[in-house]
Amino acid sequence: MAPAAAATEVEVDAWAARDTSGHLSPFTFSRRATGPGDVKFKILFCGVCHSDLHQIHNDWGNSTYPMVPGHEMVGEVTEVGSEVKAFKVGEIVGVGCLVNSCQTCDPCTQHLEQYCGKKVWTYNDKDYDGTITQGGYSTIMVCRQEFVLKMPTNLPLDAAAPLLCAGITVYSPMKHFQMDVAGKHFGVVGLGGLGHMAVKFGKAFGMTVTVFSTSPSKEKEARELLGADRFIASKDPEQMKAAAGSIDYIIDTVSAAHPLDLYLSTLKLDGKLVMVGIPEKPLSIHAFSLTSARRYVGGSGIGGIKETQEMLDFCGEHNITCLIEKIPISYVNTAMERLGKSDVKYRFVIDIANSLKSED
Amino acid sequence: MAPAAAATEVEVDAWAARDTSGHLSPFTFSRRATGPGDVKFKILFCGVCHSDLHQIHNDWGNSTYPMVPGHEMVGEVTEVGSEVKAFKVGEIVGVGCLVNSCQTCDPCTQHLEQYCGKKVWTYNDKDYDGTITQGGYSTIMVCRQEFVLKMPTNLPLDAAAPLLCAGITVYSPMKHFQMDVAGKHFGVVGLGGLGHMAVKFGKAFGMTVTVFSTSPSKEKEARELLGADRFIASKDPEQMKAAAGSIDYIIDTVSAAHPLDLYLSTLKLDGKLVMVGIPEKPLSIHAFSLTSARRYVGGSGIGGIKETQEMLDFCGEHNITCLIEKIPISYVNTAMERLGKSDVKYRFVIDIANSLKSED
Repeated sequence: MAPAAAATEVEVDAWAARDTSGHLSPFTFSRRATGPGDVKFKILFCGVCHSDLHQIHNDWGNSTYPMVPGHEMVGEVTEVGSEVKAFKVGEIVGVGCLVNSCQTCDPCTQHLEQYCGKKVWTYNDKDYDGTITQGGYSTIMVCRQEFVLKMPTNLPLDAAAPLLCAGITVYSPMKHFQMDVAGKHFGVVGLGGLGHMAVKFGKAFGMTVTVFSTSPSKEKEARELLGADRFIASKDPEQMKAAAGSIDYIIDTVSAAHPLDLYLSTLKLDGKLVMVGIPEKPLSIHAFSLTSARRYVGGSGIGGIKETQEMLDFCGEHNITCLIEKIPISYVNTAMERLGKSDVKYRFVIDIANSLKSED
Repeated sequence: MAPAAAATEVEVDAWAARDTSGHLSPFTFSRRATGPGDVKFKILFCGVCHSDLHQIHNDWGNSTYPMVPGHEMVGEVTEVGSEVKAFKVGEIVGVGCLVNSCQTCDPCTQHLEQYCGKKVWTYNDKDYDGTITQGGYSTIMVCRQEFVLKMPTNLPLDAAAPLLCAGITVYSPMKHFQMDVAGKHFGVVGLGGLGHMAVKFGKAFGMTVTVFSTSPSKEKEARELLGADRFIASKDPEQMKAAAGSIDYIIDTVSAAHPLDLYLSTLKLDGKLVMVGIPEKPLSIHAFSLTSARRYVGGSGIGGIKETQEMLDFCGEHNITCLIEKIPISYVNTAMERLGKSDVKYRFVIDIANSLKSED
């Protein structure tokens, strides 16, 4: 007699980086058998996040290989564990940056698993059972139900996949730092994967949105495609000066060094600027930029699972998705090269189901 | 017939700096006749703020001479203008850092005159009538009633004078940034004029107070005299490490360059650090210190007039004053030298009435 399906590990096709060259190539590995609290799903799409590029190259010094990247995956449930009541076979679900956390610490009990000291990243991390986590550039996912999200049924799944990282990373601070008040002036620094989502959320919240970008060529798209109300070429001192004291709050998505005092000068009294990018070098901020108008500079990382579900529901209601370029897995190395040059509008999403064969 | 007193300018004895040497010496000047909306008072005490030292030496590049410093003055009302209803002759009043503002802009209508673009500093500034403002190292003050504070009657006036700058500068951000919740852990960086007041307010708000200081010798006083619950020698890496993630919010009073990432590491999730000191060099903050625990770094300058009155009333109720060293005006140059070496516990206050002769 064949063993029960739930007790069998599953062979997964994937693409993995093997070393710091970051070159991705076909790879096969096993995921655990679906446990009583697990959800198993066939991956349909997976977004390509800039952090995937960093990690395949070991930019953060903590990479282990072989590494299957990808933490913006959506797919269709194929099996659920005996204790799983919230998900059913055939449902469309997603997994973002996290696959585990302690569930008992102060951050976890506040639904802020992203700040749990024992959180487990979706890939390039070690799970509680000792296995190395592997991401969504693969055909099948098995995940603890607490970290599985329900995807809105009305959105195109390919364009919804990046909500799981790019979306929540800007949505969460906009809610937490109260940067979501209709009628306020909202600034977005940088117009990449995160920035373009911030513009969309800003408009959905009823705000006047200003895009700051070092690339004047992005103005047309920012206004016409994304609905930005104002565009400031941030390298033009005249434009920056003219914007002084005009903005209530800014979300800053840039990971390169950039002059924060200049952006702070565009904020009103009690203005705030929140970093979601993490430049390698320390931020340089003159205290006077803060004290002279009671401003602050904050930071935020991704979001908790409960809030990610809220964000997905909000996107379903408001028909918000990412602007994407859909690619087959065979294009991923080229995509990574282009991503390194910021040559993407605004997120690559891998069509897993149609370009990677599934064992399931 | 002699002209009415209210129409006559008044001769004022003072001590002034004449040049960037900062040396103070006797000086006489005129203050305007008491206008319909003015309050005139005989100055009894004036605190010596670190910014007085900066300005007599033109450290900020905007000094004009002769300059009479002093923006922590208390005194007894000797005359009020015809429109003044809120103050009476004989009352004890104070004036802090500001003597005028437009009263109509957005910050002014929010009672945040300190952020008015047309505010007038108590000294080393030009008032709306074109006269150069002169401060409290002098015998008589004439001030627009909107900028005059009522001193609590139960406090010793010499020790209450520095509340007008040192007090409000820490009280205001503690209220605005909600760093006043009983039971929370509050950190104070630097134990000078501002820092020692922050400790007192922290205790009055019912918080557990930690003092960070580069001088381990300050521990005994911090604990015994000010009531601090914990003392951390900030140059000791072991002590800083042991404090990681233990504090809810920090007020930072230090104006010298210092490693903010280290202090940020002592904050919990959602912790905040607010600068009231203004180091000359930009602050250096790694974005990860913010994003990894959703922290923020804010700044705040002095406080509005309404809030300053609230703070004075709070101090009256809770019997809060500054720890001071009372000096005659003749000692002021020595006091400035000592202040430059942080050799004061914790504020010099000049006994104006007993050491400067008054014309009034």
